[in-house]
Amino acid sequence: MAVLDATGRLFATQGYDHLTIEGIAAEAGVSKQTIYRWWSSKSAVVADALIEDLLLPDHPVVPDTGDIRADLIAWMQSLIDLVAQPGNDGLVRSLVAAACENPDIGTRLNDALGITATVSTRIEAAVEAGQLPADLPVKEFVSALVGGFVLPSLERTEPAPDVAERLVRALLH
Amino acid sequence: MAVLDATGRLFATQGYDHLTIEGIAAEAGVSKQTIYRWWSSKSAVVADALIEDLLLPDHPVVPDTGDIRADLIAWMQSLIDLVAQPGNDGLVRSLVAAACENPDIGTRLNDALGITATVSTRIEAAVEAGQLPADLPVKEFVSALVGGFVLPSLERTEPAPDVAERLVRALLH
Repeated sequence: MAVLDATGRLFATQGYDHLTIEGIAAEAGVSKQTIYRWWSSKSAVVADALIEDLLLPDHPVVPDTGDIRADLIAWMQSLIDLVAQPGNDGLVRSLVAAACENPDIGTRLNDALGITATVSTRIEAAVEAGQLPADLPVKEFVSALVGGFVLPSLERTEPAPDVAERLVRALLH
Repeated sequence: MAVLDATGRLFATQGYDHLTIEGIAAEAGVSKQTIYRWWSSKSAVVADALIEDLLLPDHPVVPDTGDIRADLIAWMQSLIDLVAQPGNDGLVRSLVAAACENPDIGTRLNDALGITATVSTRIEAAVEAGQLPADLPVKEFVSALVGGFVLPSLERTEPAPDVAERLVRALLH
């Protein structure tokens, strides 16, 4: 799809913040009106490009070194690094906005990025290995970990440098 | 402020979902154009009415019975009950959308609702009482608890009936 491919190319070269509907239209060789016929906003285009795997082909997977704490910290740090790349300031806010506008986008983004899946799999392995309680509510643990990353990124405050370690320690104390 | 007062009255009688800019304009005796001159969306009006304490004059405070687990569950349940009231389906999504659009709204909402403040105060008391580790990262604990409530409410799935207990247990296991 020309519009989503164009979004992917522009995202790779200039990051999220400088993307505009005008720029995407020019890169795709279509009119702005054509884009607005199918997408309500830049957020919606970016969400669809992510869902189609055109923005972040390599999704961070939670590693399994046997140390659940270190593995979750490493994964959380890779998310933080991704969002901290120059030009990506507004990326999380934009995806959350797109999900608010259309809950289906939230579900499809989560499925496409594999966030819930990769954390759940790793947590279940840690429960299996006896490193976490057998009755740990996995779904809610994942929501707390991911929500604890997403929620503060809605404010434009600089995160603490050790926020990955702190967030994981808030859950595994 | 007539527009925000009107929003408060309509919210009290019909909940969030049925609010419209048209209805607010009629109730306030102003034109839709007047509202759009000052607010970009229904979400923005609702966020401002919340900030001005016109929608939820009684904000749920975390109780202190000495049992940190029971107290957090009771508080989380009161948030869940509030959002589950008929007509309030879209309330959390709307507030998150307003915060995405304007991070300043997110900060002011958080301050006005006192969410971070009430949880932080209760957690610090539990740390003081030796019920939680002295080095617990309080800020990240609050983000995980509140984020673990907010994030799933962006999808339109019915929460599990025991989700308050499960979410608190995900953090205090």
